[in-house]
Amino acid sequence: MKFCSDCGSLLEFATPAGDDRGRFICRGCGAIHYQNPRVVVGCIPEYEGRILLCRRAIEPCYGKWTLPAGYLENGESVSACAVRETREETGACVDDLTPYRLFNICHINQIYFMFRGRVADVGEGPGKESLEVRFYAEAEIPWDQIAFRVISETLQTFLRDRRNGSFPFGIGDIGSAIGQGIS
Amino acid sequence: MKFCSDCGSLLEFATPAGDDRGRFICRGCGAIHYQNPRVVVGCIPEYEGRILLCRRAIEPCYGKWTLPAGYLENGESVSACAVRETREETGACVDDLTPYRLFNICHINQIYFMFRGRVADVGEGPGKESLEVRFYAEAEIPWDQIAFRVISETLQTFLRDRRNGSFPFGIGDIGSAIGQGIS
Repeated sequence: MKFCSDCGSLLEFATPAGDDRGRFICRGCGAIHYQNPRVVVGCIPEYEGRILLCRRAIEPCYGKWTLPAGYLENGESVSACAVRETREETGACVDDLTPYRLFNICHINQIYFMFRGRVADVGEGPGKESLEVRFYAEAEIPWDQIAFRVISETLQTFLRDRRNGSFPFGIGDIGSAIGQGIS
Repeated sequence: MKFCSDCGSLLEFATPAGDDRGRFICRGCGAIHYQNPRVVVGCIPEYEGRILLCRRAIEPCYGKWTLPAGYLENGESVSACAVRETREETGACVDDLTPYRLFNICHINQIYFMFRGRVADVGEGPGKESLEVRFYAEAEIPWDQIAFRVISETLQTFLRDRRNGSFPFGIGDIGSAIGQGIS
């Protein structure tokens, strides 16, 4: 971020009067350009005990398996986003959405909001963002081929809760992988 | 949004290849500038059945009563944000945070994420964003002086759930007030 999106002047990074942290401030018009975390919304699409995963056709993690998820758009509710992303990435329609998990991913300025959902219709198969889609029973999940840690953690928590017969809403943290040897 | 924050060139609003909605695209360097909802995090600070409200010292809704809440910052977890905003706006320290409610406010591209919390220490009173703070019993809440509809709805839901003795996490929608006669 170098130029003001309102007037095109150069920005400086400084703490505005009355604030307590640095912001990008325009040297021309004085506009303050705040930067805030983005929200990713996803879904665990389930049908008769199996979970619908999709294999990524895009980077990062091309070829790895994931749950459908993507950025919340302006004007969109979180539930609508979960339904849209599931349809776009797996072709399937989900209903009976239940909020399930929020993950802070502070080092990349994201929060993930995951729903549980019931596959109502498998639809026409994967969209352009997926190479293939497949229903996985618990024992079949390809743990060494899961795209992101937030997805592994969501799946592990879900399977544990399913064994316990209860799915309380909860919050988790995904830390930076630096020094942890995990991706 | 008129100029590219990366290179300062003019932006155009068009649908990028492979996308399905309009974005701000730079005519110079081709950067796509996505716009996404911002997250506001807040808290219902409770102590022995009373709720800590603060009276706004800033616009909008100067002089009206509200729950502590504010924008989630980059690098910050939602729980840390709830604690920080409560401290900044009421002076109080909260602990025992429990996720309680998410509100979609699609017409202003915000989502609100509200916690319940226990006031552990009342601290040194209101910060510069509040004129005063006060603990309210249910019967004392100044319903006609509450700053925002999302705050009224949070309080009403909380009081209803408290009567039922159960606080399930849930999602609500705050629609545009246009045509509804409500602010």
